[in-house]
Formats: sequence, structure tokens, C-alpha cells
Amino acid sequence: MTTSRNDLLLPDLPEFQAGWVWLVGAGPGDPGLLTLHALHALRSADVIIYDALVDERILRLAGNMAELVYAGKRGGKPSPKQPDISNRIIRLAQAGKRVCRLKGGDPFVFGRGGEEALALVRAGIPFRLVPGVTAGIGGLAYAGIPATHRDTNSAITFVTGHSASGEVPDCIDWDSLAKGSPALVIYMAIKHAERIAAKLMAGGRSPDEPAAFVGSATTEHQRVVETTLGRAAIDVIEQSVTAPSIFVVGNIVRLRSALDWLGAIDGRVLNPDPLNEGYGRNNTETG
Amino acid sequence: MTTSRNDLLLPDLPEFQAGWVWLVGAGPGDPGLLTLHALHALRSADVIIYDALVDERILRLAGNMAELVYAGKRGGKPSPKQPDISNRIIRLAQAGKRVCRLKGGDPFVFGRGGEEALALVRAGIPFRLVPGVTAGIGGLAYAGIPATHRDTNSAITFVTGHSASGEVPDCIDWDSLAKGSPALVIYMAIKHAERIAAKLMAGGRSPDEPAAFVGSATTEHQRVVETTLGRAAIDVIEQSVTAPSIFVVGNIVRLRSALDWLGAIDGRVLNPDPLNEGYGRNNTETG
Repeated sequence: MTTSRNDLLLPDLPEFQAGWVWLVGAGPGDPGLLTLHALHALRSADVIIYDALVDERILRLAGNMAELVYAGKRGGKPSPKQPDISNRIIRLAQAGKRVCRLKGGDPFVFGRGGEEALALVRAGIPFRLVPGVTAGIGGLAYAGIPATHRDTNSAITFVTGHSASGEVPDCIDWDSLAKGSPALVIYMAIKHAERIAAKLMAGGRSPDEPAAFVGSATTEHQRVVETTLGRAAIDVIEQSVTAPSIFVVGNIVRLRSALDWLGAIDGRVLNPDPLNEGYGRNNTETG
Repeated sequence: MTTSRNDLLLPDLPEFQAGWVWLVGAGPGDPGLLTLHALHALRSADVIIYDALVDERILRLAGNMAELVYAGKRGGKPSPKQPDISNRIIRLAQAGKRVCRLKGGDPFVFGRGGEEALALVRAGIPFRLVPGVTAGIGGLAYAGIPATHRDTNSAITFVTGHSASGEVPDCIDWDSLAKGSPALVIYMAIKHAERIAAKLMAGGRSPDEPAAFVGSATTEHQRVVETTLGRAAIDVIEQSVTAPSIFVVGNIVRLRSALDWLGAIDGRVLNPDPLNEGYGRNNTETG
């Protein structure tokens, strides 16, 4: 994709100024899902402070002089506390560094990006917000599951499966979400999958409703486990579903039999009638 | 961002093969929010079939030899019918072209990407899905509104404000969404803003709840109108809010007074205590 001619066609991108912090979404994993702003930030930054969910292939795109600082959980050690991360970012910016704060997915979808940005405001540090592709949309697409589809849902809800304390957030009205949202994507859902599925079924969702876990979405290790709401908790154990995974519930999951384009590359035969609408009944060749 | 050295650092991107269709999200407007896959597709495609919401600056990134085909509504003429668009894409792919089907935002968030992909499956055309940054997340970030924030919401719902027929989709359970989802982003909401706001208030949401319209999000023409649920329909008229706009409802809108980073570039003084949590009371200098 790189010739000197094509380079001239790149859009003008804003300068990453000294003393600024760019709060950047790295996307769900595939480096091809980086935005141009994110790539520009990686190449221009003096310091890149990254989280556990940022793919190694993305970090390799950093400029040669950039310092890479890991701010996630490592081995058995606890992850750095949020105020410590924010204070470190603030000190680096105050010292005149270009600081790229790099988070997996989108920083503002259960990524605590808003909290970190607020700390910058309070310290008077200039900043730019760079959204990214979130796993709940882009990861679904790599699993062949569209976030919305006219024949299945006019709404979709993103919800977090555990709070900062590690529990299912008690502020979530699962009953109303079960009734109101025909498709749900639950982030960080593995630990509490059984309780979440039970709450949705208590709210009226059928145990037979299609569901899926999408693990390490868009990376080389992506793994999709199709299940139902009633079997989800069992399949977490039997299929050894591990974090990071998103849990998607709704009839959109049925579309995967048609739209699993990554599977098709490996030879999967796609189903032209995933919603049993009768496609093909009049088209079938007889002989 | 372009030196010959840095070019070597670009990730390996998959080849856009002849006879394939790539269904690509262009992001909400800012060319810097294009993904690397999207840029690669624009440069490699033989034909680019694009919608009304794709920014002109993005189309300028197309390869010199690419044919650009507009598939949106133009002037007073009706937009091409969906089967006509799909049939045209299929014929081009069957003729061995590399076809980039380019949609604003993410193709699978109320973008009919799933329908177009299903038509490809039925025609036996190989395809790749390239998700993009959706306006409901990325556009909010450019307005200084995080999609989620720990102190305001553990869930967010995306919903479409009108169906294919142009009406408010009657399958949406606004009452349950009002009760269950602390933040809502309504796409294509302008025409029916009054009815949607009324349904949410009938479901128990306060007329004083913060809300905002974000128009032409992330483009040079971005315009944010802050309002409340009770005043939203009035402000659509009084403030001349026009499509394309998203309508966001919830306490996340309050964070804009702190996180309006684009406003800050133009001199806006940001509020360090947007949720009235008492920040600054112990920090205030006395004199």
C-alpha cells in the first residue's frame, strides 16, 4: 500500500504537539483496524503507555525513539492503580513529552478513558481524544455477526459484565434490558456469565435464544463459541472460554452461518438463508 | 507521518483480490478516523461504490485508477433501491473487479451492511467485512461525550430513529429502554425527535435529563446542540438541527463541559467538576 505517489494522498493529520496527551483507541486487535490518527500517534509519540489488551503487532508500529510503558496487569502482580497511571501521564506531559495513552478497543466504551481525560483536565494538560473500533462492533463483524440487521434488531445495548470492584454492576436493570433490547453485547462477561444469562432469562428471554462468545476478537487467536442463552454458562466451562471475550445475545448471532467470512476463507460453506426466510425454495435446481 | 523508513513499519495487510467485495466502514467523517484496512481498500479498489455520508476528503484518498460510483440520494431524485445496488456490486465482482463498498460510519450499525453481505453470499461472491468507527461512539468523543463513564452508566443503547419506511420502528420497546438504559444514542433521530423524546419521558425519564444533538460528527461542519429531553424537540426547530445528526440522552452529556477538547482548542475553559462531585472544593485557593 505504500508508494511515494500514494503517500501524497494521505490526509493532513494534526500535529502531535509536545506536552500533549492523546488518548487513543487501538481497536480490538487486528492492526488493520487502527485508525490513521492512531498510527500517527504511535509514530510521533515520545512515550506510549499501553494496556494489557493492546496487540503486540500494534506496538511494533511505534516510532524507534518511543518509550513503551506497560500499564496493565502482569503475571501475578496487581495492575497499577488508576490514579498512579494518571499521575504518571500528567508528569510526562508536564515534562514536555508527547504522551500516547493507548487502550484496546475504544477508550470510552468501558475503557475508563473518560476518567483519565478528566484527570488531564484537572491538571490543565491539553489532550486529544482518538476513538477506535470497539470489540462489540468490530469484533462481532470478524465473527460474521452484524451489530444490527433489519430483520432482527433496531437496537443494540452494550453493557459491562463487571464493575471496578469485579462484581456484576448492581445498577444495571437487567430485567428492563432483557425486555427492551433485542441484542446485547456484554463486555468482560466470562466471570459472571452464569448470573448474567440467568438475569436475562428471568427478564423473559428464551433459553433457546442464540448467543456467542467471541474471544480475542480480530486477533490471530480469535475464537467464536456459538451457544444459547440457556447453555452459555455450561459452554464457558466445557469449551474453556477465557477472557478477553465478549458475550453476544440475540438473533443477530444466527446471521453468522451466512456471514462468517473468515470461516469462508478456510472453506466453510456459507448458509444463504440464515433466518429461515425461505430463500432458495424457489431457486433450487431440480433434476 | 510518511518517511520511507516508517513505511517499512506498516503492518502486513491482506491483499484485495480481484473479484472480491470489501464492505468497508469509512468512519463518521474525519479522514483520520479511517482504518488502515479502509485506506488500503480505497487505494487498491477498481470500483468504489459510496453512500451519501462519506466525506469528500475520504474519497480523495482513492487510487487514481478507481472508478467512483455514488449510490446515495442526490438532489430531488430518489436513492437507488437496495436490490439495484447489490446487483450492481455483484455484476462488477463477477466481472473480476475489486469492489470497495464504502459506507459512512460502521456498515453494521444501522448501515444495512448485513443485508448487502447476505446478497453477496447468495451470489457466491467472496467478501471481507471491514468495520469502522461508528458515529455513536466516535462522534460522541469528538463532542467531548464519552459513551460510558463509571459514574454515569454501565450500559449504552444504540437505536435507530426511523425504519426503512421512514417511521419510528414500531418494534422498539421505548418504555423498557427508558427504564433499562441509562444512556441512549439515537441514529437518524431528527425527523421523529419529538415522538422519541415523548416516548422516553413516558417511560419515566425526566424532562430535565441532559441530551445533545451531534450533527455532521467529526467533520469540519460538526455542530453540537446541548439541550434536555424536554426541550429537544423545540431545539431541533429553534436551533435548526439538521440531518445527519445523532441524538444522545443521558448524564454522559454532562461530561462535555469537561471533555470538549475541540472546544478547548478554540479557547473554551473546561469544567473540572462536570458531575458536581465536589472536586475543587478543597483545592480552591483562598485569598
